[in-house]
Amino acid sequence: MPRQSIEILSTGNEILEGLYADANAQWLSARLNEMGLPVRFHLSVRDDPDDLREQLAQSLNRSQLVILSGGLGPTRDDLTRQTVLAVYKTSAQRDPRAESMIRERFAKRERELPENNLAQADLPLGCIPLYNHCGTAPGFIMPAGKGRGALICLPGPPFELHAMFEASARSWLEQTFPPTEARRLRVLHVFNRPESDVDQTLHPLYGRDEKIYLGLRAKGGIIDVRITARGATPEEANVRISQCEADVRRLLGPEDVFATDGGAMEEAVVELLKRSGKTIACAESCTAGMIAARLANVSGSSECLYESYITYSNEAKTRILGVRPETLAAHGAVSAQTAAEMARGARKIAAAGIALSVTGIAGPTGGSAEKPVGLTWFGLATDSGVQTVRQNFLGDRQQNRSAAALFALDLARRALLREQ
Amino acid sequence: MPRQSIEILSTGNEILEGLYADANAQWLSARLNEMGLPVRFHLSVRDDPDDLREQLAQSLNRSQLVILSGGLGPTRDDLTRQTVLAVYKTSAQRDPRAESMIRERFAKRERELPENNLAQADLPLGCIPLYNHCGTAPGFIMPAGKGRGALICLPGPPFELHAMFEASARSWLEQTFPPTEARRLRVLHVFNRPESDVDQTLHPLYGRDEKIYLGLRAKGGIIDVRITARGATPEEANVRISQCEADVRRLLGPEDVFATDGGAMEEAVVELLKRSGKTIACAESCTAGMIAARLANVSGSSECLYESYITYSNEAKTRILGVRPETLAAHGAVSAQTAAEMARGARKIAAAGIALSVTGIAGPTGGSAEKPVGLTWFGLATDSGVQTVRQNFLGDRQQNRSAAALFALDLARRALLREQ
Repeated sequence: MPRQSIEILSTGNEILEGLYADANAQWLSARLNEMGLPVRFHLSVRDDPDDLREQLAQSLNRSQLVILSGGLGPTRDDLTRQTVLAVYKTSAQRDPRAESMIRERFAKRERELPENNLAQADLPLGCIPLYNHCGTAPGFIMPAGKGRGALICLPGPPFELHAMFEASARSWLEQTFPPTEARRLRVLHVFNRPESDVDQTLHPLYGRDEKIYLGLRAKGGIIDVRITARGATPEEANVRISQCEADVRRLLGPEDVFATDGGAMEEAVVELLKRSGKTIACAESCTAGMIAARLANVSGSSECLYESYITYSNEAKTRILGVRPETLAAHGAVSAQTAAEMARGARKIAAAGIALSVTGIAGPTGGSAEKPVGLTWFGLATDSGVQTVRQNFLGDRQQNRSAAALFALDLARRALLREQ
Repeated sequence: MPRQSIEILSTGNEILEGLYADANAQWLSARLNEMGLPVRFHLSVRDDPDDLREQLAQSLNRSQLVILSGGLGPTRDDLTRQTVLAVYKTSAQRDPRAESMIRERFAKRERELPENNLAQADLPLGCIPLYNHCGTAPGFIMPAGKGRGALICLPGPPFELHAMFEASARSWLEQTFPPTEARRLRVLHVFNRPESDVDQTLHPLYGRDEKIYLGLRAKGGIIDVRITARGATPEEANVRISQCEADVRRLLGPEDVFATDGGAMEEAVVELLKRSGKTIACAESCTAGMIAARLANVSGSSECLYESYITYSNEAKTRILGVRPETLAAHGAVSAQTAAEMARGARKIAAAGIALSVTGIAGPTGGSAEKPVGLTWFGLATDSGVQTVRQNFLGDRQQNRSAAALFALDLARRALLREQ
């Protein structure tokens, strides 16, 4: 059994059939690497008892730790429990707490409990149960022994897997595999700058410290600057990463980093709104609620978001927001003038501190030579007046609408930032 | 070497470090399954010569076909070529066409050609070269032989991998592995039924036909019923899958299957709205625009969605939708009465055929013993009156809101279905 050999094993025909990428393996690998536990193999096998048994046996023989995700559900093709029993040549026992948690869950949802569901509470003898607070299937840990590595079985649904890992598996891992070296990861999220520009700007930092790794990743208009730092202690890694973060921020400037470590654009906007005591209202056409919905993702957004309007039709733009018919007739719904009147109207009727408006051609139809698909006008109304901005998005309907929502939120963020 | 055993092997530390999910394995698996070539294993290994060599040797020994992606680049951690040479105990030869393509590419981009870049043109003796029209690294095929399966090596960048697969690997696969049977996959999407209930309901169909595989997968309140059918011909597989789909639909009833093969709930709703010539309006509190935004995902939804209202505050519920202050005072914002008045008001002011309302406690704060986090009231106003429904969601803020949006859309779908 090689020291520090860790594998992640996923089960599910849907992975082998290409219906989904194996996001659980990715998430678990990121967590384990943060904990100083590098992952050596990812494996995915079908819901086939023989394949799963053979692979599990091989993995447990060659590795110190195997994390198996999926197959804990109540149905016939959930094979993980039986397979573990076969590999360990042991039997299962009904776990009373797991059973009562399943019963409770169905009661809360006011649903009848099918008997086959309780089979999920039958756990291998000698395991450490991992109770599921977000779903019905409990997980479990089989400690290492008899030339076998340790096995952690987690449910397949990502939300359940994440919660169970954080609630119980993580602490067990920290005790069982104390890291030899601390690792820290920080991600800075940058909006509205080309990746190559960010890359060139950060060039002075590359290779400056062999215990620091800087990586870039572009996705949906956002550039993630990933800083990985190693150190003898967590403190040392933290100091290293904070110094590097400061350098990155200095080079990128004060406005472009909108969040860190998975923070969302809407969180930055709500934070700035709360700080300024301002409220926001949205008048959305092509985004049709995406901006308000993203603001409402943030708990406590009710302090700064009271109401918003989805005005898809011209008639609604006029009746609800007071956009003048002449404006629509002269310039069209997708125009600076309409965006300006939408924002001004929304700010007025909502009596809001600032108002955002979006009107664009999301596609696939509705484009013209003069106004192509992707053309989007934004309005931002504040007490210093109304500003309009144009963008040409090049994606499909969904991409154009998400990009527009993100761009609108960033517009508000930069305005609030400058007002501070 | 088992017949029809195919593995996909990915190399790259970034996968094992959890920076990305293995999207290449997913994409390749989808293509291969479409071609009647089921994939048995996915594996990912680090950029480590020993791990890669051992895994490649094992995979080639046990499988008929291995598709390896990544590691073809010019840098020192691109190990695929050397590893293949080691496993096959052969040497490399500079491929003139590959070399000239690399030189051409650099010339076009007016870049100086680093010598190490040409190493990419050094391909194993006896391979079938796969030329790269989207990048520098050529791929190659090692035909099966000496108890080894065939090996296809493709570049890691998805765009290059896709192009190379379609341009050359696909035709070679079709000739080398003429499908012995056709396979078809159909997914039926079921909403608002526990997985274990669906499982029990479909039990009569399990194992009835060895050429049919039925699998379930639960995600976010949706149960995917995945039907895989095999047949001597595509027609035979299609007949088999259609018969099974009919049986599944009969057992599940006429309403619960809302879409097939990745179709979305909002598409079903918009389709039914268009058929009935009705328009829809939404009055959203906790979902704050998610329902309207999902409807607007559907191209052409402007035919049936003109406007909607996000009324987060009580004051907005009263001013915009006409919810009576007495109702809010007596029953609270999260109540059947408020949901009913929100829906009725929205239908009236939008002059819409049907209106949906949602008001709930998304959490994490705002819950009480009487009204816990997750409690959500829905209103549906049609010309036959207003109906209200209550749900208790058990997720976090985002999940409760997404679940509420989905539930509201399903409410409209079922109402429109019954009116037909």
